[in-house]
Amino acid sequence: MKAVVYEGPRSVSVKEVPDAKIERPTDVLVKITCTNICGSDLHMYEGRTDFERGGVFGHENLGQVAEVGNAVDRVKVGDWVAVPFNIGCGFCKNCERGLSAYCLTTNPGMAGAAYGFADMGPYRGGQAEYLRVPYGDYNCLKLPPDAEEKQSDYVMLADIFPTGWHCTELAGMQPGECVVVYGAGPVGLMCAYSAMIKGACMVMVVDRHPDRLRLAESIGAIAIDDSKGSPVEQVLKLTNGIGADRGCECVGYQAHDPQGHEHPNMTMNNLVHSVKFTGGIGVVGVYIPQDPAPQDKLYADGDIIFDYGLFWFKGQKVGTGQCNVKAYNRQLRDLIYTGRAKPSFIVSHQLPLAEAPDAYQHFDARDDGWTKVTLQPAA
Amino acid sequence: MKAVVYEGPRSVSVKEVPDAKIERPTDVLVKITCTNICGSDLHMYEGRTDFERGGVFGHENLGQVAEVGNAVDRVKVGDWVAVPFNIGCGFCKNCERGLSAYCLTTNPGMAGAAYGFADMGPYRGGQAEYLRVPYGDYNCLKLPPDAEEKQSDYVMLADIFPTGWHCTELAGMQPGECVVVYGAGPVGLMCAYSAMIKGACMVMVVDRHPDRLRLAESIGAIAIDDSKGSPVEQVLKLTNGIGADRGCECVGYQAHDPQGHEHPNMTMNNLVHSVKFTGGIGVVGVYIPQDPAPQDKLYADGDIIFDYGLFWFKGQKVGTGQCNVKAYNRQLRDLIYTGRAKPSFIVSHQLPLAEAPDAYQHFDARDDGWTKVTLQPAA
Amino acid sequence: MKAVVYEGPRSVSVKEVPDAKIERPTDVLVKITCTNICGSDLHMYEGRTDFERGGVFGHENLGQVAEVGNAVDRVKVGDWVAVPFNIGCGFCKNCERGLSAYCLTTNPGMAGAAYGFADMGPYRGGQAEYLRVPYGDYNCLKLPPDAEEKQSDYVMLADIFPTGWHCTELAGMQPGECVVVYGAGPVGLMCAYSAMIKGACMVMVVDRHPDRLRLAESIGAIAIDDSKGSPVEQVLKLTNGIGADRGCECVGYQAHDPQGHEHPNMTMNNLVHSVKFTGGIGVVGVYIPQDPAPQDKLYADGDIIFDYGLFWFKGQKVGTGQCNVKAYNRQLRDLIYTGRAKPSFIVSHQLPLAEAPDAYQHFDARDDGWTKVTLQPAA
Amino acid sequence: MKAVVYEGPRSVSVKEVPDAKIERPTDVLVKITCTNICGSDLHMYEGRTDFERGGVFGHENLGQVAEVGNAVDRVKVGDWVAVPFNIGCGFCKNCERGLSAYCLTTNPGMAGAAYGFADMGPYRGGQAEYLRVPYGDYNCLKLPPDAEEKQSDYVMLADIFPTGWHCTELAGMQPGECVVVYGAGPVGLMCAYSAMIKGACMVMVVDRHPDRLRLAESIGAIAIDDSKGSPVEQVLKLTNGIGADRGCECVGYQAHDPQGHEHPNMTMNNLVHSVKFTGGIGVVGVYIPQDPAPQDKLYADGDIIFDYGLFWFKGQKVGTGQCNVKAYNRQLRDLIYTGRAKPSFIVSHQLPLAEAPDAYQHFDARDDGWTKVTLQPAA
Repeated sequence: MKAVVYEGPRSVSVKEVPDAKIERPTDVLVKITCTNICGSDLHMYEGRTDFERGGVFGHENLGQVAEVGNAVDRVKVGDWVAVPFNIGCGFCKNCERGLSAYCLTTNPGMAGAAYGFADMGPYRGGQAEYLRVPYGDYNCLKLPPDAEEKQSDYVMLADIFPTGWHCTELAGMQPGECVVVYGAGPVGLMCAYSAMIKGACMVMVVDRHPDRLRLAESIGAIAIDDSKGSPVEQVLKLTNGIGADRGCECVGYQAHDPQGHEHPNMTMNNLVHSVKFTGGIGVVGVYIPQDPAPQDKLYADGDIIFDYGLFWFKGQKVGTGQCNVKAYNRQLRDLIYTGRAKPSFIVSHQLPLAEAPDAYQHFDARDDGWTKVTLQPAA
Repeated sequence: MKAVVYEGPRSVSVKEVPDAKIERPTDVLVKITCTNICGSDLHMYEGRTDFERGGVFGHENLGQVAEVGNAVDRVKVGDWVAVPFNIGCGFCKNCERGLSAYCLTTNPGMAGAAYGFADMGPYRGGQAEYLRVPYGDYNCLKLPPDAEEKQSDYVMLADIFPTGWHCTELAGMQPGECVVVYGAGPVGLMCAYSAMIKGACMVMVVDRHPDRLRLAESIGAIAIDDSKGSPVEQVLKLTNGIGADRGCECVGYQAHDPQGHEHPNMTMNNLVHSVKFTGGIGVVGVYIPQDPAPQDKLYADGDIIFDYGLFWFKGQKVGTGQCNVKAYNRQLRDLIYTGRAKPSFIVSHQLPLAEAPDAYQHFDARDDGWTKVTLQPAA
Repeated sequence: MKAVVYEGPRSVSVKEVPDAKIERPTDVLVKITCTNICGSDLHMYEGRTDFERGGVFGHENLGQVAEVGNAVDRVKVGDWVAVPFNIGCGFCKNCERGLSAYCLTTNPGMAGAAYGFADMGPYRGGQAEYLRVPYGDYNCLKLPPDAEEKQSDYVMLADIFPTGWHCTELAGMQPGECVVVYGAGPVGLMCAYSAMIKGACMVMVVDRHPDRLRLAESIGAIAIDDSKGSPVEQVLKLTNGIGADRGCECVGYQAHDPQGHEHPNMTMNNLVHSVKFTGGIGVVGVYIPQDPAPQDKLYADGDIIFDYGLFWFKGQKVGTGQCNVKAYNRQLRDLIYTGRAKPSFIVSHQLPLAEAPDAYQHFDARDDGWTKVTLQPAA
Repeated sequence: MKAVVYEGPRSVSVKEVPDAKIERPTDVLVKITCTNICGSDLHMYEGRTDFERGGVFGHENLGQVAEVGNAVDRVKVGDWVAVPFNIGCGFCKNCERGLSAYCLTTNPGMAGAAYGFADMGPYRGGQAEYLRVPYGDYNCLKLPPDAEEKQSDYVMLADIFPTGWHCTELAGMQPGECVVVYGAGPVGLMCAYSAMIKGACMVMVVDRHPDRLRLAESIGAIAIDDSKGSPVEQVLKLTNGIGADRGCECVGYQAHDPQGHEHPNMTMNNLVHSVKFTGGIGVVGVYIPQDPAPQDKLYADGDIIFDYGLFWFKGQKVGTGQCNVKAYNRQLRDLIYTGRAKPSFIVSHQLPLAEAPDAYQHFDARDDGWTKVTLQPAA
């Protein structure tokens, strides 16, 4: 089958790889019709992780079930399914508490597995014609009758819509509160969108790319351009000097200033200053314990200089980590089905699989208008 | 000062009563500019409670501070304030946990006090020119600069907007869930509106008055006319036979069939059948321990025949009781201020105080189009 | 293999039945070494349900894994396991939220399955030499090295220890609160024990059997004998007239007065009166939608006369239903392992399987000292 | 009246100061009978804050009401009361949500006030004969009939028992979980004690003072001596390499190695390594935004080098800040009253006020056996 293969820093190709197939009785094989490029693919694409050459990318996947193992009871051939990026077993201590991003079974020695992801187990990604889904009854979300026509909405259930939503949960957001989101990439926009759906009274989004800030405004958020002045001061001004009730980190360790210098501690410290006393902060932007090519030396071991004294003094809380997609994907699916959510508003490009190399290049460069790319292996 | 005085069953007059005034150092005196007639006023108006003749109605109040006691620190003369219908002290065991509807101080021997309300303490209502607010720093919600122009929105903060919201909280509603609301009176409409704001994927509203059902549809809810067939069957049909995730009771003990016969157990049992296994039910419709004039004999002591076997078998939860207004009024105020909520959509009549007797008569008769009446004592 | 077989009202025998065996690739076969008789077995034993003759009882099971299906990954032959009475799939909407008592897969057309239980699916019970456990990786709780010697403690993890604990959760109990438990049968005692472990400041237990009340006192609870006067008055006296913070129903629909007459509404209404304004009530005592042989006619369809007016007026909450064992069994296992819990204090009899008929007779008669019976098929 | 007065670094005296008195109608005047020296007093005593000379220490206070203002309704002369260290108003946005440590009224320009505390407002402490308590109805906790005889227990309600409890709440601890507490000073011991009361399955306490570790063991905790090897390794060994479910920081910014060198980031980073993936960390040890005399230069502005990459990778949560005493003091009072808690086990010295200077010196030096000092101004 054809797949998007990592060839080395800033290089991918589309080529033939061995077919995905049923390997265990609990597996499901999905024919991929829609698979997105994610901002976290870029960390790997840029060679900033230990993802191995020859591996297949792709953890935002949607398609139709082609085959099921003989221990699969719920999922049927022909079902349209969205596949969470995390691979859980459903029966370990973490999965049974809904912490499916930290499965103790699927990536032995660690907590958590994913498709086509550095350090997340030996699973190939779904930027390919087919995807093997382990523990298929647990990991496939069945989609309603309008699945095929709304693919570009439902595919967001695999990662970024739940991940953005998760950030508001980690921040402890409640209806009627005021939220600031750092980062207006796809996850940041989904986070802002989630806050709007959940009844925030005001959502502020910090970024510096005009196309992204326009998208934020299109869903009712207030755009804050941090290339035009301190985002902290802008947030404080909009909140009578008090700060936001909740802050959301949707940037990650490659946070950089307008000049392009990386400061892994920049967003976090801005959040401590932007959020009120007793407020909450959620962090879904990716941070890693070891950075093989750090711009900031301190961060080689994942260390940052953190305004901890102020953080404690303000009595803030922080919640972090990858999203447990299954904790949210049913409800978000239902919101899409009843027309109350339409997350495809961020999609800028729908391309055949063959154009993946070009798409990676543009998306990595944050070229204007390349907000979110969907690949269609079956097209 | 002038006030709406209860003269006996189905009779109120507007006449002179002694002026409200500061009685304790913690009191605040509010000049009332906007005060609503509430569905629960009708229980008293109809003589179905032991509310005493000569008492003043009115627990949905908004106005401007005219005077403050010498121990009042936060509220200032001239402030625009919305006044929760419950009167709390702020320091008893219940108030300090946010259960201000069950204050242990303000109505000795009972839990909970309110303005102009049967069994809720010796406090006069605010359908009058002035209102004395005990523990004013605790009980007055300050309003933002647009208070005067948005009075018909902010006045809903005194009772029915928080009460409708509370019902969704008692039901345990989460974003993305499906909710059925029984009753499309003002509280039921506010409940449906709250569920929409909080991100329900579908809201169904059961009633039989066309004007109310139209209002429900105007906010995106699905109207269910229970005079056209079993509401339970209609709910099950809309939910693939599973039932709603959450059910909300906004009717109360005077629930009656289309022929007008009261069945205090009707709504509750319909909810047990309308809500899914493991679902939650919230009840803000008023029920009372003693009914002086019950249509259903059993209800003289507040008893109902309840489908308890099925309720348990389905593993449902029920939460009940009056709304702790202060638990929600700040957030709802902020939603109004930022334009994300506009609860005045239910207001059908804005009248001078003098027209109260006429307004009571129409509202009590559920005359078509008399959805919600606001009285303006200062007009 | 040998098993306890239901022969008709008040009659069981121990006889040969077809061997339990692996039927699906996800099955686990457990050699039962310890299996309890439960109070809910008695409803079936007495012929008060539609449990069919020839069926095998037993849903409180512990033993050693004898065989596993080829899709089982975690559980290994030789593992000691405690088996929750509910049979979940691990991947349906309810299981993935921890509501494994309401699995949508294992008992089609209903929510929830169990071993050897009326209306809970076609699964044989474990009062037998072997038990087939569906979805074994999900449904088996692995036990620590001291499993064999502490069998009479760990077997309580299958049902009554989690069920008693669940009741305190349904009631919303927090540390430092005051709890009243109605019923000092095995579940009631486990409920009181759970409340003590969780830091209740006072636990009251209502019953009338001296042996049970003594056991309640042995764990630090206050015994209330309801044959000596109104339990409500005794509770109010012990709580300065305020009532308990939380109430727990561990009796069920066969609640009866000291003269033996059944009143299915008795415990629930006593709880409404025994619990404070704003308090919470948990109900794990079994209630059923249809009673084939009701003493109280109204209860034929599961109806009771309920003090709903007072319940609402007090702003109480009720949570009901069977326990989701997997929500608690890991933590309770760990408490047993570290010696902080020893639920076997209620065991009165440890008997070979062959003595089951005699044991059922004594336990059903509530004979003095027959608090809890453990059967040992391997003995 | 006599009071403990700060004279400068490591110097206090007991001398006459102007009498405390009723200043506002909502004030209560308390005759102090029992007032503790707290670990956080030592930061000020050592001159590590900007506490001004001439100020009076003391925020752990208990006594008898001597006088009340004319707007005080609940508290009566003669009542025995424990006084939370935080001074709240009861009606601001934070107080009404139970965040009384962050009152927006009592310390204008900041969030939160306290008695005799640097940066926490102009309130004198209670290491004196009398204490003025603002908003007395809100800030005084009435004590039961055994108040006088159990003073050394109830005085712990003013700060360290709730503060230790709060730490377990910030960490998100649930019954049956495994907890590691860093620091076995009075707060750390109260934290470990709280975890035991709430049903932890195992509590580990890290310190290096033998007298403190012995006290930890006396309540059933496991003592870990960090002068004998890496505490992280000891914790991992006791938890099968997984780490504790929850971690509690009860040390603060003066954390130091066995050689006495301060490392403000030491405890926090140890916690990240000691706590499992998805685990929670609570921090009640004091951290400050500006350290006037930092040993670690970076900490002059409250900065630390933090293992953020690992923290995020493990998906941990952190909650911080001063304890909202009123959120817990009623329940903890009730646990003392019913005999289920006896926090006075940490008291090593009960001394007259006059011996305060000597007591400060010994306590500051961590002299063996000086675990907790109670001063008795009325003795």
